[in-house]
Amino acid sequence: MKLKRITVVLILSWLIFQAGAQPVRNELLVPDIDGYHTLKCDFHIHTVFSDGDVWPLTRVSEAWREGLDAIAITDHLEYNPHKKYIPISHEAPYEIAKESAQQAGIILIKGTEITKSMPPGHFNALFIDQATPVHNDDYKQALREAKAQGAFILWNHPGWKAQAPDGPKWMDEHQELFDEKLFHGIEVANYNEWYPEVLDWAGDKNLTIFSNSDIHEPMSDYLLQNKTDRRPITLVFSRERTSESIHEALLAGRTAGWFREYLFAREEILNQLLEESIDVSITGRNEKNITYKIRNLTDLVFNMHFPVAGSDKFLPGRSSILITLPAKENHDQVTFGNLLSRSGKPVVAQLSSLMKP
Amino acid sequence: MKLKRITVVLILSWLIFQAGAQPVRNELLVPDIDGYHTLKCDFHIHTVFSDGDVWPLTRVSEAWREGLDAIAITDHLEYNPHKKYIPISHEAPYEIAKESAQQAGIILIKGTEITKSMPPGHFNALFIDQATPVHNDDYKQALREAKAQGAFILWNHPGWKAQAPDGPKWMDEHQELFDEKLFHGIEVANYNEWYPEVLDWAGDKNLTIFSNSDIHEPMSDYLLQNKTDRRPITLVFSRERTSESIHEALLAGRTAGWFREYLFAREEILNQLLEESIDVSITGRNEKNITYKIRNLTDLVFNMHFPVAGSDKFLPGRSSILITLPAKENHDQVTFGNLLSRSGKPVVAQLSSLMKP
Amino acid sequence: MKLKRITVVLILSWLIFQAGAQPVRNELLVPDIDGYHTLKCDFHIHTVFSDGDVWPLTRVSEAWREGLDAIAITDHLEYNPHKKYIPISHEAPYEIAKESAQQAGIILIKGTEITKSMPPGHFNALFIDQATPVHNDDYKQALREAKAQGAFILWNHPGWKAQAPDGPKWMDEHQELFDEKLFHGIEVANYNEWYPEVLDWAGDKNLTIFSNSDIHEPMSDYLLQNKTDRRPITLVFSRERTSESIHEALLAGRTAGWFREYLFAREEILNQLLEESIDVSITGRNEKNITYKIRNLTDLVFNMHFPVAGSDKFLPGRSSILITLPAKENHDQVTFGNLLSRSGKPVVAQLSSLMKP
Amino acid sequence: MKLKRITVVLILSWLIFQAGAQPVRNELLVPDIDGYHTLKCDFHIHTVFSDGDVWPLTRVSEAWREGLDAIAITDHLEYNPHKKYIPISHEAPYEIAKESAQQAGIILIKGTEITKSMPPGHFNALFIDQATPVHNDDYKQALREAKAQGAFILWNHPGWKAQAPDGPKWMDEHQELFDEKLFHGIEVANYNEWYPEVLDWAGDKNLTIFSNSDIHEPMSDYLLQNKTDRRPITLVFSRERTSESIHEALLAGRTAGWFREYLFAREEILNQLLEESIDVSITGRNEKNITYKIRNLTDLVFNMHFPVAGSDKFLPGRSSILITLPAKENHDQVTFGNLLSRSGKPVVAQLSSLMKP
Repeated sequence: MKLKRITVVLILSWLIFQAGAQPVRNELLVPDIDGYHTLKCDFHIHTVFSDGDVWPLTRVSEAWREGLDAIAITDHLEYNPHKKYIPISHEAPYEIAKESAQQAGIILIKGTEITKSMPPGHFNALFIDQATPVHNDDYKQALREAKAQGAFILWNHPGWKAQAPDGPKWMDEHQELFDEKLFHGIEVANYNEWYPEVLDWAGDKNLTIFSNSDIHEPMSDYLLQNKTDRRPITLVFSRERTSESIHEALLAGRTAGWFREYLFAREEILNQLLEESIDVSITGRNEKNITYKIRNLTDLVFNMHFPVAGSDKFLPGRSSILITLPAKENHDQVTFGNLLSRSGKPVVAQLSSLMKP
Repeated sequence: MKLKRITVVLILSWLIFQAGAQPVRNELLVPDIDGYHTLKCDFHIHTVFSDGDVWPLTRVSEAWREGLDAIAITDHLEYNPHKKYIPISHEAPYEIAKESAQQAGIILIKGTEITKSMPPGHFNALFIDQATPVHNDDYKQALREAKAQGAFILWNHPGWKAQAPDGPKWMDEHQELFDEKLFHGIEVANYNEWYPEVLDWAGDKNLTIFSNSDIHEPMSDYLLQNKTDRRPITLVFSRERTSESIHEALLAGRTAGWFREYLFAREEILNQLLEESIDVSITGRNEKNITYKIRNLTDLVFNMHFPVAGSDKFLPGRSSILITLPAKENHDQVTFGNLLSRSGKPVVAQLSSLMKP
Repeated sequence: MKLKRITVVLILSWLIFQAGAQPVRNELLVPDIDGYHTLKCDFHIHTVFSDGDVWPLTRVSEAWREGLDAIAITDHLEYNPHKKYIPISHEAPYEIAKESAQQAGIILIKGTEITKSMPPGHFNALFIDQATPVHNDDYKQALREAKAQGAFILWNHPGWKAQAPDGPKWMDEHQELFDEKLFHGIEVANYNEWYPEVLDWAGDKNLTIFSNSDIHEPMSDYLLQNKTDRRPITLVFSRERTSESIHEALLAGRTAGWFREYLFAREEILNQLLEESIDVSITGRNEKNITYKIRNLTDLVFNMHFPVAGSDKFLPGRSSILITLPAKENHDQVTFGNLLSRSGKPVVAQLSSLMKP
Repeated sequence: MKLKRITVVLILSWLIFQAGAQPVRNELLVPDIDGYHTLKCDFHIHTVFSDGDVWPLTRVSEAWREGLDAIAITDHLEYNPHKKYIPISHEAPYEIAKESAQQAGIILIKGTEITKSMPPGHFNALFIDQATPVHNDDYKQALREAKAQGAFILWNHPGWKAQAPDGPKWMDEHQELFDEKLFHGIEVANYNEWYPEVLDWAGDKNLTIFSNSDIHEPMSDYLLQNKTDRRPITLVFSRERTSESIHEALLAGRTAGWFREYLFAREEILNQLLEESIDVSITGRNEKNITYKIRNLTDLVFNMHFPVAGSDKFLPGRSSILITLPAKENHDQVTFGNLLSRSGKPVVAQLSSLMKP
């Protein structure tokens, strides 16, 4: 009886603790484009319920702290190294995390990872109702079940060394799945790597681009270890801040992969992000030269290559640079080396076209 | 002759180096208010031309890098410890720095520091034409000469321990100068300290509030030593980005002192800065409690005290917090402990009044 | 069958990953004293097996990375908020972590937390064989069982606000347990706080001093949130690098609590740590003054108060300072404000006595 | 008269300020070798007396703060862009800095930079008596004068792009100077670059190796801009902590260039530094594999390449790593990629030979 009282007291104080528990949220400054909300999302996350190291609630706290708008926990269906201690439960992570996510205003999307050897490799099914029925030895049956539930499906880390030692390969199996519309998206970036070939596939085959963390350890460990401030993020250009709107945007391919300094997206999306991020003005001019101030008030960064040798510039987030260029025709053409619509195709723009009227 | 050629080559390569020399500028995110531009300024800076450690050009680079809009170099007229090596030249710092400032879009205001023992202490004269004539053993004559040149004059560090060991004192000499309108502003914050009494003086006597660095060493040394990202800054709410507009704003008292986490200003200015900086929304509600998300996309910070004990929150720049408050009357009253119009008078507001429609 | 093969491949690649998985270990520089090894330990750690957020293996990685020599995982016996998903298993954390700890050369001590309401509060039992039998509604029976297993027992966070809102209190219940020798140590520091009164108790009652993390979240989160590089650590002065030697040292009271800048220990231990850490030399001298260089090549820090007003100095790890003192008698007496044998009793020493011959 | 008093008060308070002015010194942990003191030195530094940005005293403070033992201020003889404001004075920097250096225990070596176009480029003369007589339009005469004063002379930044756009070249002019013994050392590293060919020259021609900062701006700016904690340093292995001993060591070629992660030195010096820095022990062993712990308690770092593919490791300062290697012959051979005696010749050692007995 005494124990009961203690437990109640403990649980109460724990709940009270939880109430104020969310740490400070670092807001990421990324502009909205073209009437859409730009949502910061991570659609590939693990917990102790497969081979991850943390409890599902920690994933919500991390997402809040890092300024994310939506996440999907996607534990492996087939790989459960903790099962000696944690009975297999594919629905548990979502169940545990959903209330906390709601309180923090994080959109929690139910997902799972279908984990097969290559071919065809690993796939995430998002917006599912139940993960358990998706578990199937036959990968096609698994994907079909996910699709039957209305899932959005993406092919994960097609270039993961352990499964693709010679680089990503589009095999017959992938073509079959693609033809049957059993996946619609693909990870161009995953954890600490990105795959140039896969960016081209996305363009060729009209696949939705993803950049996901595939995090297993505590996220702070990843950030410290990789000396970065930010996990891989999928920017979703969404009509509203809802799960349904995100689903619609993924189907329409309105995403950008944000990985380290890179942005991977369709050309028109990159152009809009650029326009909304950068502000150019002229601060000096004589017969020979023009000096430009280029200002970026967002958290995006820009690698700028100018026609004049030796004048490349890196423009970090929330900062400005000065650049002096010869006052000749086409002198002000800039190649943004980190904005890629295809592996060899950076965004090119005129500084003058980025001047606000 | 050979030497000449060498020198020319050297000077040329040096100039070329200078052309692209400005480092990246970190932009400070502070909202404009009420139709005014919010300019970030520092009106108290030293160089090797008095007892500072650096060349005037370095002060321009630092200002650019730290996101400032305007600076005044204010070397001591009376104190010249380097004179054995550097002939006294009160006009030199401005002369040396002006072109570089112009190229970087930094407004360089000509100034000087009238450096007397207490009373009356040190005064900065801003917007002067010539510093040399201001040098006068009689402090009143010095201030009158500055005024005759149209200077804006402020009393520097009234609480500096070396001159005011028992705290800032408004002496007869200060009253005389004030009555003769020989100064119009006062430093509430200087270097690494601020003076609560002086904030009250500013309110009582309608003096323009300043927060200046009084920097002598390289600014990076100050930042590292004081474990801060930002020097003391005077925010000026200016009609245009010109020297004249800044002068007009100083005369009108439209400034705020930004020192560490503090903002010192007239109440209406603090309220406007708060409104433009903070965005409140409700993310959860039941009979007992309401949960608010408070978002701040600026580089200002906010120390928030809520009526419920133990629920104080610190809201850093570019971040959000969640706070759950009881759903009672006046439950949502917040005291912003770091926004001070007088020494004991923080801004108080209702969360509901900070919600955007 | 296919699945089996996949699983085997996955497990193999996972194990290979694990083999090289330990990150870089940051070595903490703390001197050995008096023929003992100075071991850095944390005897209070949680995992998902009670109310912690991470898998036990993560605790080993963290300890390795942070330069620890020994840890005890001490999940709550009575508080199991994850039990809906993780069947209660008090032996699991040790079982899971032991091999990894051995490979990393971390001494893993089996422990558990006896979790009662106040009085008497929470107690850690270390060096136990089996945690399960210690679980008992009657706290005395629980402690007796632990003692019967040869446990070293300490009273945890006696000043924890939730249980001691008016500060730590030594109640009759504690006296009874103490008289029956049912605990031998006490936490002077826990998580992000320390208790001055408890340091005095330790001196009065000859209790072994502990400074433990009581970590629940990922350790990187704690470090980032608390803006510190180091968790609370119990320094153990141990004959050998073995579990048995640590046990002997705890019984003999040869520990120091290392919390933020503080060291809590018996006076003779503090004196020895000081002597082994600090090196003083004279770099200048005239009739009036002597200038000393004080060098500290360890990761300990020292808050030094000198008899001359305004001359206090902070000596960080791996650094030196210069101090000029008047050449008078007893001029060189230093109070080390952060080395405490009792709450009001800092170590006092003469600089001259810290000069190496 | 009044002014006089003021000035005296000001100067006094300034001197008092100076007395306690030196900031905290960060001690660099580099082992002594073979009976020599390992002194951290920078022999190439500028001030406002040529084209540098800071006052000479600042160079002493920086050296103290960064843990240096000796510096030479080496302003340009021929290049004086500040001469409109600062009369040319080649002796001033030493004169100004010497007392402050002495108080801080920094060995200040009098030097100057002979600044000619290529060929032969720039040369530093160290341990001179008077800089002014060294100034000579004829570079040979300048070097002969320096030599007559007993100077140690080094060729600066032989690969500086502005003078050697196609890489460093050993021209006839250099051979002549070398034959006449008009220089004895060479910068393998300067500011933010190093020159592989020059390291080979040093080996071939028995030139003393230097790594110098050639700093012009405030050192904190360099460190922030280059995202590094440490300027380029020349390690000197010196019998005593005196100017004379350093001179002797330079003549004997007992130096190492320490630039970012690299150490450039003669093979025997590198081997000794390695042995004194690294401590290897075996923490696990079975038929197939041996696990080693490699510990480094210094501030040097080590890039280690192992025979097994994919097992390269970076060992930062004050840290340890674990590495598991196959238990075969020569399995434990490590290539230390950042310890170079020649451009393509890293140090190779057996882990077993680095085990302490």
